[in-house]
Amino acid sequence: MKKVRIGLLGCGVVGGGLCELIRRNRGVVADRTGLELEVQRVLVRDPRKERPVERSRVTTDAAAVLEAPDVDIVVEVIGGLEPAREYLARAIEAKKNVVTANKALLAARGAEIFRRAADRRVRIGFEASVCGGIPIIRAISAGLVGNRISALVGIVNGTCNYILTRMSEEKCTFAAALAEAQKRGFAEADPSLDIDGHDAAQKLQILAELAFGAELDHVPFPVEGIRLIEDEDIRAAAELGYVLKHIVVGKDLGDALDLRAHPALLPDVHPLAHVRNEFNSVLLRGDAVDEMIFTGKGAGSLPTASAVLSDIIDVSRNGHDHAEAVWHVPASPGRPVAADLESKYYLRFPIRDVPGVIGLIATALGNRGISISHASATLLPARPGHGNVKIVAHRCAESSLKKAVGEVERLPVLAGRAVVLRIFEEG
Amino acid sequence: MKKVRIGLLGCGVVGGGLCELIRRNRGVVADRTGLELEVQRVLVRDPRKERPVERSRVTTDAAAVLEAPDVDIVVEVIGGLEPAREYLARAIEAKKNVVTANKALLAARGAEIFRRAADRRVRIGFEASVCGGIPIIRAISAGLVGNRISALVGIVNGTCNYILTRMSEEKCTFAAALAEAQKRGFAEADPSLDIDGHDAAQKLQILAELAFGAELDHVPFPVEGIRLIEDEDIRAAAELGYVLKHIVVGKDLGDALDLRAHPALLPDVHPLAHVRNEFNSVLLRGDAVDEMIFTGKGAGSLPTASAVLSDIIDVSRNGHDHAEAVWHVPASPGRPVAADLESKYYLRFPIRDVPGVIGLIATALGNRGISISHASATLLPARPGHGNVKIVAHRCAESSLKKAVGEVERLPVLAGRAVVLRIFEEG
Repeated sequence: MKKVRIGLLGCGVVGGGLCELIRRNRGVVADRTGLELEVQRVLVRDPRKERPVERSRVTTDAAAVLEAPDVDIVVEVIGGLEPAREYLARAIEAKKNVVTANKALLAARGAEIFRRAADRRVRIGFEASVCGGIPIIRAISAGLVGNRISALVGIVNGTCNYILTRMSEEKCTFAAALAEAQKRGFAEADPSLDIDGHDAAQKLQILAELAFGAELDHVPFPVEGIRLIEDEDIRAAAELGYVLKHIVVGKDLGDALDLRAHPALLPDVHPLAHVRNEFNSVLLRGDAVDEMIFTGKGAGSLPTASAVLSDIIDVSRNGHDHAEAVWHVPASPGRPVAADLESKYYLRFPIRDVPGVIGLIATALGNRGISISHASATLLPARPGHGNVKIVAHRCAESSLKKAVGEVERLPVLAGRAVVLRIFEEG
Repeated sequence: MKKVRIGLLGCGVVGGGLCELIRRNRGVVADRTGLELEVQRVLVRDPRKERPVERSRVTTDAAAVLEAPDVDIVVEVIGGLEPAREYLARAIEAKKNVVTANKALLAARGAEIFRRAADRRVRIGFEASVCGGIPIIRAISAGLVGNRISALVGIVNGTCNYILTRMSEEKCTFAAALAEAQKRGFAEADPSLDIDGHDAAQKLQILAELAFGAELDHVPFPVEGIRLIEDEDIRAAAELGYVLKHIVVGKDLGDALDLRAHPALLPDVHPLAHVRNEFNSVLLRGDAVDEMIFTGKGAGSLPTASAVLSDIIDVSRNGHDHAEAVWHVPASPGRPVAADLESKYYLRFPIRDVPGVIGLIATALGNRGISISHASATLLPARPGHGNVKIVAHRCAESSLKKAVGEVERLPVLAGRAVVLRIFEEG
């Protein structure tokens, strides 16, 4: 039996979940792997707080974890950029293998961290940084390692998916669904990281770096959230045979990558269309496996702790001096993000009730080269004299569409900004 | 760059796919893993046949592959019990790491093979033995290694799923759907291994051994196929809010395991209900991750080759002298398979058209303690004087139900054997 002494940085939701999971399943893990797991030392800010480990193991001294000779592996579950970055750098310098759940840090400084680790020949496990309990990092880097991955599509933010599912199934407003998500612990008090798409974008970056072997630390790509979605967009989507989801898309176009995080209308038969509530799902397209879909809980204490634990075991089993077996110093440099791709679009224009308003808007779009396949106007019973025109536009370049929408928004019949959503037609 | 010299046993659908995949993606694999893959020698029966490797590498002499000093890893894709079993034993004896796609062999002789491997401290990769390209073995043994797995439900036979999907979507007969599956290469000329449930049962056995840590080489459990399913069972299921699928179920009941492979009615909202055509899908329930679902192509040349390749890489990276890291000499001995579990049931009785036939059958069932929630009788337009009575029975023990159905089958109004399908109600 090989002993693995864990130095834990942080003991909040994920760290506490990890302590609980190790306590509960230590025997199972020992039977399966021959490893005896021990939470050796835990770095916390407030040593007086009740923790799921013995008080003698708790410390406020980072060096007592990072540089301790009796710690074999350092597990970072503090989150945020600093001091997490500094701690990881010190642990790597001290030649400790490292496991981190910190997607923000990997998205911002991943390349630097992985280079340091390769130099010092230590391993970094980061399964928990993307989609919690779903072993998606392992799927790409091990299960599908022999595939060229051409595309990925994912529902990777549980908060957005929970809100959109509730809006769809209970016909409630965005605000009501957000409040419910907060009540049930799926959304933070300040939900902007989730609902504005930034959390999803960080996960996309990490997945795309891995899938396409490109360094993307400082590569901007389009990111949109779900704040402007109204229940009637969801209803209109359903009438047209679509489901509204917040997705991330990554595609290898050869010279460039197509990367984006935004709400989109998925065809009702799309494999991700029926992923509900807080579940995450990632579809990968590989040249050998074709389409592969991984679905599960993407956040939460125990699912994330499960991913951290799988990394601790993997790194402890296989961590001796073969840092070349760690993917993550990308072979190829960053590739540009493709701009101005074509898509079908769903548009909603808030209007004042004017006769002939569909004609006005359709003409304005048509004059700018945007042709449309559906148009409908509805009035808001609760707001006399106001309504919406909803339009489905044929495939067109994003730049042309945005220009045309900008022009329509200046028409005097418009009562507000347009909602512009891509219609996702690929597999 | 570390060279990996592969000794390939067999060069049919999977072996040919592997040669093709290595040729195509050798560079990608080298970039990602630092491994240089070489198909060193290929054992075939007919050396004159055209192969996707140089003729000089082809041999009919097993020893030239199994015991060759210039072969690092032996890959078995012959299938069947013998000579595959003997070859694997010789390779292990010669201290070669081994990769196999052979589910029939692992289901029949897995325990013996894994024990030999542990004794000789070599590794066995067997990702390709279950669900082709889906990295489900890796998910259980690595991604979810920190979880106690309490249940698994899977659609693991692509032929059955293709047939049932076509019958459902095209309203065609079993025979027509089977013919289409054979035409498209999803079913063998002799399809009985697939459509009678034996292929699914072998996969269930391997998954259950891994998930529940039990040795199940000679443990019988209920296995049923889809031969008796008619399109009207599928229509009746749909009317009741269910989808008819061939599934495998494994559950850890503590003292015993619940293991079975059979067609069942899944609620329309079940995560596996909309897995279509030749796709496979496995749902696992872990104590930390909750529900996790893996979906993809479960068979075919390149998907299976992808799994073989992932094992070659994994074993070559991590294969040095730590056989304890290979799961598969189960810690606990086999556990009994639970018998006579309760379920809701769908029953179809072919009848001669007799007035009051629903009453006759319902009374016969009721007299034997089976209470029912739905009953309907339909006549067959194509076969005057004949019809079907379809019944939904409340939860009852399998033994009581079978006894009652046996009695009903003896009623003079019956025109044939009953179709008995479980209604799957769990998550």
